[in-house]
Amino acid sequence: MMRHFDKSGILEADSSFRRDLINSLSGYKSLNLIGTKSKDGITNLSPFSQVFHIGATPPLVGILFRPHSVERHTLENIMETGYFTMNHVTEAFYQQAHQTAARYENSEFEAVGLDEEYLSDFFAPFVKLSPVKVACSLKEKQTLQVNGTVLVIGAIEHVFIEERGLRDDGSLDLNRLGTVTVSGLDEYHLGKKLARLSYPKPDKALREI
Amino acid sequence: MMRHFDKSGILEADSSFRRDLINSLSGYKSLNLIGTKSKDGITNLSPFSQVFHIGATPPLVGILFRPHSVERHTLENIMETGYFTMNHVTEAFYQQAHQTAARYENSEFEAVGLDEEYLSDFFAPFVKLSPVKVACSLKEKQTLQVNGTVLVIGAIEHVFIEERGLRDDGSLDLNRLGTVTVSGLDEYHLGKKLARLSYPKPDKALREI
Repeated sequence: MMRHFDKSGILEADSSFRRDLINSLSGYKSLNLIGTKSKDGITNLSPFSQVFHIGATPPLVGILFRPHSVERHTLENIMETGYFTMNHVTEAFYQQAHQTAARYENSEFEAVGLDEEYLSDFFAPFVKLSPVKVACSLKEKQTLQVNGTVLVIGAIEHVFIEERGLRDDGSLDLNRLGTVTVSGLDEYHLGKKLARLSYPKPDKALREI
Repeated sequence: MMRHFDKSGILEADSSFRRDLINSLSGYKSLNLIGTKSKDGITNLSPFSQVFHIGATPPLVGILFRPHSVERHTLENIMETGYFTMNHVTEAFYQQAHQTAARYENSEFEAVGLDEEYLSDFFAPFVKLSPVKVACSLKEKQTLQVNGTVLVIGAIEHVFIEERGLRDDGSLDLNRLGTVTVSGLDEYHLGKKLARLSYPKPDKALREI
């Protein structure tokens, strides 16, 4: 049986029901801890499920910041200093990652017990336990007229990857790295590989690669 | 052992290595088939891993379109007609979903053997097999200066969900729905739940919900 909600049904629903539903609709989402540091030297760490690919040449990533959310410390630090890091989350510390979303006054690293790490003289802190760490510099910022959501585009400056998860062709074995994915607002999952598929062409059968 | 690539190392790498690497960096991505129809009545279906949450009140989604990609039929149809659908992909048809990315001249529905479905008089076609179907109308389009990537924002008009996957609080049980997630360009996975965690507050221990 299919349940149907039209626009007015969604808007008339309880606000927490609506928030959970709409946040679940896109499916599984990537999960990254974004690390930043203020001009005054206070570090910040916050979970983001809206990080995406903008381009490979040059390598660019995008992050969406919802208006009026707790993530604003992260955005302020990025605008102030120009730097941030992205760090994959694993089963070993996804609960600490979730806890970084609480409204702390000081550094979330210390508050939740995750160690900072500094690599290649990059200004912003990495998460020491993370198997995939990406250093980015601020490239562009756009505000969406529709509701004030902010899109930050970062240029990738450094990538650090646990060797066991990097394949010869450049792809990452996320199952092997133990990377976690999130759905909705608060549900965490591991990935369980089905297959890699060959490049799709008309009139050519797909094969597993 | 950590492998390190700096910006020049990434840019000097083989282009397919770079593409695979950069597309893998964000982690697991959502996977949706976007269904559209041209003014002339030709339907189109294409896989997207860059669909995200823009807002719940009113309910809005965003999709990123890479410049010069095969996804351009989808973008043309959206700009021409103002409508599109998003459809979750399951283990039962992820290979067909992958195959819709091939350069077909006519409808991908027919080419890969996925049935169209029309619901609530909505103009664009849904994927009949999909357990989560979302109808959207075009709200806003923005082009990113940095590399011509296009951001399309859609207003959610209808949501159809297989009842077994909708929880009382509005969240979706993606494991139960069989929704698939993608990593890199071509790797598909099921999700395996770790836990749902309570709302994070300072000085309060998390619990599973």
